[in-house]
Amino acid sequence: MKFAILPIFIPFISIFLNLIVSQASSKPTAIPIPSDNPMSADKIELGKQLFFDARLSKNGTVSCSSCHNVMSGGEDNRTASVGIEGKVGTRSSPTVWNAAFQSVMFWDGRAKDLETQAKGPLTNPIEMGMPNHDFVVQRIKQIPGYVSSFEKVFKSKDSLTIDNLAKAIAAYERTLISMNSPYDKFIAGNKSALTSEAQKGFETFKSVGCISCHSGTNFSGPTLPQGIAFFQKFPMIPNQDLEQKYNFSADGGKFQVTKIESDRNLFRVPTLRNIALTAPYFHNGAVKDLNEAIRVMAKLQLGKDLSANDVKSISSFLKSLTGEFPKQALPQLPPSIGNSVITE
Amino acid sequence: MKFAILPIFIPFISIFLNLIVSQASSKPTAIPIPSDNPMSADKIELGKQLFFDARLSKNGTVSCSSCHNVMSGGEDNRTASVGIEGKVGTRSSPTVWNAAFQSVMFWDGRAKDLETQAKGPLTNPIEMGMPNHDFVVQRIKQIPGYVSSFEKVFKSKDSLTIDNLAKAIAAYERTLISMNSPYDKFIAGNKSALTSEAQKGFETFKSVGCISCHSGTNFSGPTLPQGIAFFQKFPMIPNQDLEQKYNFSADGGKFQVTKIESDRNLFRVPTLRNIALTAPYFHNGAVKDLNEAIRVMAKLQLGKDLSANDVKSISSFLKSLTGEFPKQALPQLPPSIGNSVITE
Repeated sequence: MKFAILPIFIPFISIFLNLIVSQASSKPTAIPIPSDNPMSADKIELGKQLFFDARLSKNGTVSCSSCHNVMSGGEDNRTASVGIEGKVGTRSSPTVWNAAFQSVMFWDGRAKDLETQAKGPLTNPIEMGMPNHDFVVQRIKQIPGYVSSFEKVFKSKDSLTIDNLAKAIAAYERTLISMNSPYDKFIAGNKSALTSEAQKGFETFKSVGCISCHSGTNFSGPTLPQGIAFFQKFPMIPNQDLEQKYNFSADGGKFQVTKIESDRNLFRVPTLRNIALTAPYFHNGAVKDLNEAIRVMAKLQLGKDLSANDVKSISSFLKSLTGEFPKQALPQLPPSIGNSVITE
Repeated sequence: MKFAILPIFIPFISIFLNLIVSQASSKPTAIPIPSDNPMSADKIELGKQLFFDARLSKNGTVSCSSCHNVMSGGEDNRTASVGIEGKVGTRSSPTVWNAAFQSVMFWDGRAKDLETQAKGPLTNPIEMGMPNHDFVVQRIKQIPGYVSSFEKVFKSKDSLTIDNLAKAIAAYERTLISMNSPYDKFIAGNKSALTSEAQKGFETFKSVGCISCHSGTNFSGPTLPQGIAFFQKFPMIPNQDLEQKYNFSADGGKFQVTKIESDRNLFRVPTLRNIALTAPYFHNGAVKDLNEAIRVMAKLQLGKDLSANDVKSISSFLKSLTGEFPKQALPQLPPSIGNSVITE
């Protein structure tokens, strides 16, 4: 899959206009758009409907939005997410805000792009619980409004396929860009956008080495070609006390996908944008608050014991990474008339 | 609680404007507003945030919106709703669209108004699962944006109470009016708004007697003073075959609240507006499609066997009761910063 780079300062469809305006003072960057999934307003709207539609889960109770709540920080503020029938996973839901900037998806990086990611939870028995992708397609085909929208967006009959469904969701997700944070304003030249404490925290963030992994537009590492992950081992430095307390190593990360021993405990470096909104923290959501997460990271990744003042100022800096959120209309979902498509 | 009547043709706050315009051709009616819960734009916005906020449930997974989905027919298209930890209730969620017109709430009418209703699911162990209302208030008090909104809306410190929380939600719900259906247009004089089949169905709906209960603005019975229910016995006419198939009588309805034998199997008469969007049907969601629901109602309530043609035309008429839905902005929820208020 080839990717084109969409400069977000070049208006290209009306739906992006507000977003672009709101980012006028933030650092220019680019949203990667796969060449085989070009954006269109109709596709984004279709993807948004699907994103919010709980009929994509077996019993009609879980939508993408259930675990990736765009009314707040783009996830669910839970240790681990809850799927159908109250089933609980083992990992904390990553934010969907700015996911467009990530080179790979999931904590273990097992999906190369948003399109691939979108197909995963649908058939995960502890997430949306659909028996298989064909079942998803057959269900959505029972909803006339979706059938016509897929035809309109993908310009052919029989366009309601699982790949096109994932493409529509991914297109919507690429509009979920939250920038223009106090930090962005500061970088753009507004020196009063950051408190002196946050500025001090930014300096400490750089000097102690956090930035060696949390770099770039999204504070999630260098911009690699789409599909190539920026992984880090976590914990890097073994620590019995913290391990006992938080059980970080139990999850093998990338190892659980590849079964290669050198991949053990490798995780995709997550974004720090909007980090203040996405507690609890880490792949297993074991750390409840941001200050403790900062202490833990410094200890386990950098071998450093931060002072209370350093933690406080880094925390102020990280809170300055909370961006603005594009205003969105609540979607209306296409109905099934006189019956329900949900099987229980 | 006294109620004022708000004529919906008199613009009173800007948020209603779209709604009023969209209802210009429908039959004039009025939304009852309790005198101790006047509407305001800020209150409606606060109520909307609360309505969509899953942090109102114990484990952060269930919001009002989970079972009363305003992106579609105002409920969840399930037999029975699913609360926290996958717990399943016994009744099918009633629509929140036009609930403002109902004189009482819940299938058994146990809540006299929307304010009382809103407090119920919060502490129901199989719905939102909060231990008690004080717990709800203490949790919401941890979210600074809510604290300031309550102060602004209710004009005092310590205004974040369970009663005010319910008032805000009820105020939002009073904006969830879906009118201007093909039927409304027809009644307003646009004779081409209904197909001839739907017109025939409307005549049959009246002549066979459906309208004796499903009358009024909301097709849910005569307009009684707020808090006085229009109940009907269901099933009215015992029928062993249908009972065996659908198990309607197992739920005692109002009897389960009052323990008075004459209240057994009494249910509030539900609205027929948007009925095509709210399958499956009846208090227990036992009937999967609208045609069968029509047959069952005629048999059990009126003692009539409808012809296939009558069912078809009444179904066309009922489908003409699908209204327009006011466009709404997706709310942004006030955050808790650097930690999660959810207890698991």
